[in-house]
Amino acid sequence: MAVGQCDFPKMLSVPGITLGTTCAGIKQTIKDDILLIQMAEKSTCAAVFTQNAFCAAPVHVAKRNLLKEPRWLLINSGNANAGTGEQGMHDALLSCSELAKVAGGLDGQVLPFSTGVIGLPLPVNKIITALPDALRNLSIDNWDKASRAIMTTDTFPKGVSTTMSLAGETITITGISKGAGMIQPNMATMLGFIATDAKINQTLLQQCLSLAVEQSFNRITVDGDTSTNDACVLMASGYSSAPEILAGSENYTLFADAIMAVCKQLAEAIVRDGEGATKLMRIIVEDALNDEEAVRVGKTIAHSPLVKTAFFASDPNWGRILAAVGRSGITNMVLEDVQIHLDDVCIVRKGGRADDYTEEAGQRVMNEEEITITVNLGRGVAKQEVLTCDLSYDYVKINAEYRT
Amino acid sequence: MAVGQCDFPKMLSVPGITLGTTCAGIKQTIKDDILLIQMAEKSTCAAVFTQNAFCAAPVHVAKRNLLKEPRWLLINSGNANAGTGEQGMHDALLSCSELAKVAGGLDGQVLPFSTGVIGLPLPVNKIITALPDALRNLSIDNWDKASRAIMTTDTFPKGVSTTMSLAGETITITGISKGAGMIQPNMATMLGFIATDAKINQTLLQQCLSLAVEQSFNRITVDGDTSTNDACVLMASGYSSAPEILAGSENYTLFADAIMAVCKQLAEAIVRDGEGATKLMRIIVEDALNDEEAVRVGKTIAHSPLVKTAFFASDPNWGRILAAVGRSGITNMVLEDVQIHLDDVCIVRKGGRADDYTEEAGQRVMNEEEITITVNLGRGVAKQEVLTCDLSYDYVKINAEYRT
Repeated sequence: MAVGQCDFPKMLSVPGITLGTTCAGIKQTIKDDILLIQMAEKSTCAAVFTQNAFCAAPVHVAKRNLLKEPRWLLINSGNANAGTGEQGMHDALLSCSELAKVAGGLDGQVLPFSTGVIGLPLPVNKIITALPDALRNLSIDNWDKASRAIMTTDTFPKGVSTTMSLAGETITITGISKGAGMIQPNMATMLGFIATDAKINQTLLQQCLSLAVEQSFNRITVDGDTSTNDACVLMASGYSSAPEILAGSENYTLFADAIMAVCKQLAEAIVRDGEGATKLMRIIVEDALNDEEAVRVGKTIAHSPLVKTAFFASDPNWGRILAAVGRSGITNMVLEDVQIHLDDVCIVRKGGRADDYTEEAGQRVMNEEEITITVNLGRGVAKQEVLTCDLSYDYVKINAEYRT
Repeated sequence: MAVGQCDFPKMLSVPGITLGTTCAGIKQTIKDDILLIQMAEKSTCAAVFTQNAFCAAPVHVAKRNLLKEPRWLLINSGNANAGTGEQGMHDALLSCSELAKVAGGLDGQVLPFSTGVIGLPLPVNKIITALPDALRNLSIDNWDKASRAIMTTDTFPKGVSTTMSLAGETITITGISKGAGMIQPNMATMLGFIATDAKINQTLLQQCLSLAVEQSFNRITVDGDTSTNDACVLMASGYSSAPEILAGSENYTLFADAIMAVCKQLAEAIVRDGEGATKLMRIIVEDALNDEEAVRVGKTIAHSPLVKTAFFASDPNWGRILAAVGRSGITNMVLEDVQIHLDDVCIVRKGGRADDYTEEAGQRVMNEEEITITVNLGRGVAKQEVLTCDLSYDYVKINAEYRT
């Protein structure tokens, strides 16, 4: 199941970035499960990683190699190499050194990523055997194949492509993501890979990505769980003829906005593909004291099983939303100052149901597939947005029956 | 649905505490929906209330009256009087003053409690009309009826009764509770009323209750939501011939232990009656740095929809438990030091699946109706326990279809 229009866009190639996919036989199907991304020399590369304290072996290795001028991302789907102890670390390092050997580089220039089942040994020999084929397949035109090779239980591939103009020259930004729960059944889940031909140093690139992820991937939730493997990478080849993007410049602002927009679209695609999702809920918290408070209220609503099941049932059950706001841990909130809207319908005002609210109006909104919940806290000017989906029978089904 | 043996115990009456129930017609059935509890003069009374910032009107009034030597608890089920604005506060105060009038006391001596649907006006006139009947029915033998009068969507009444001996004299403790989710569909939920004939001052009684609630009602979760109406009251009539219980005495320790045991049983009954529950999960976190950390890890596991659906499916999916521990926000946790057991079966050791673990052993435990998950963090000596239930199709069904 998925919410809304999920057509895969036309993906623009990014000069300086090539992609090769192949089937190593990690999944039980004969679909591609290896993605190799090669960056041109002098590319810069930024990344953010899961906050889960028990991050998977490849995350440890990728973190360590990020500042060693990486040239390759080696991604496998079907196995997360998480909860695999010392053997897992050995396997992650071995896959890097074997790739460096056949590609002609250094071990430290490879960033490994794994997504799939937790706790099973990584079939590293299958991956090593598949490396020459992945290298042979490298092409700038493989974004579509790449988006499919990283899928696990995703029901559709997720990609975004855009261009911007700087000083009359074009910069291309193309990205893919995967994930259908913050963590899949026993899968380690969310990955995003974004490439651009912009010229920008690593520090600035990292700043740009960190900010974008904070406002996009960190603002979505399907079930509140955080995977051991989550990662998002931003690569910049510098192949565009546009001038280098410098700190504090107007160009930086334009570029950062474009990266932000791409990240938001990739993140939204994950929620649309949320396990069992039938509705997309955009939760806007405004007039909060500060951003942290707005996010906290938004996520408390987004995580509430009672709110999520009400939306699944298309039930305008404002009591559940109000109760979630109330238990979000914000001090000195005044109930009488809070207003809640479902799309354009005011449901809560002055501590209770709005005088002009009618069940018909509420029901009309709830029957939509995409709904905006706006909570106005009436105590400041901060505003933040959180995206989530509903909680359906299918969520339970998918997660209860995953291994059977 | 409910987990385990739910026979209602023989309830001992508590000298000095009388209870009267009646049907005011608030619920759509003709079941009793009013419970009046009268405490003898000079009784002491302690209470703890919901942490939800948007607590219901009766909670505000009960908090305010707690230190005015209350004589009556007036409880209605079927309507929570929450999200009802100024009218709700007016109705709560009116019900107190009307009771004081017919019972011959002061407004401030009444503590009101409401549980049921959020956001609908309290039918206060029905309650007022029913008061004389409730007063007429006052009897020390009505604990069974009382436990049923406060039920909403509970599938069974919840009660505990025990005695202890102090200086050769008997002290009786009897309590009832209700609730089947931390918050029901759009209901405001958990209530607990405990009475004893011990002689003990209010300050000490409050200390005793606060400690007991922290270790019992605050250690259970069905869906992580906190109701706007949660409250737990402990009344002491002083009618027992046992000596007064004094601060720091051995008798206080014995009494506090007994109250704790009663609270734990009443809290456990709520989890057993958790919406759609098919399994009871006892999560023990041990060798933590401190209690706060242990509770945090326990609740993160207990709130994880992925862990809860796995238990519903009787799937020994240790990757989900490990990922939940990892995302609980504890700093400097060492994966290799963590051990996880399901009952007596070790599933995680040294950062991965235990060497001696077998799927058969895991499956044997998962097929049980009550399962203990023990997480050893290997970094301290603190130990805490959290109780929860699984997440089933019926949870979604109950909460999606509640208003239809």
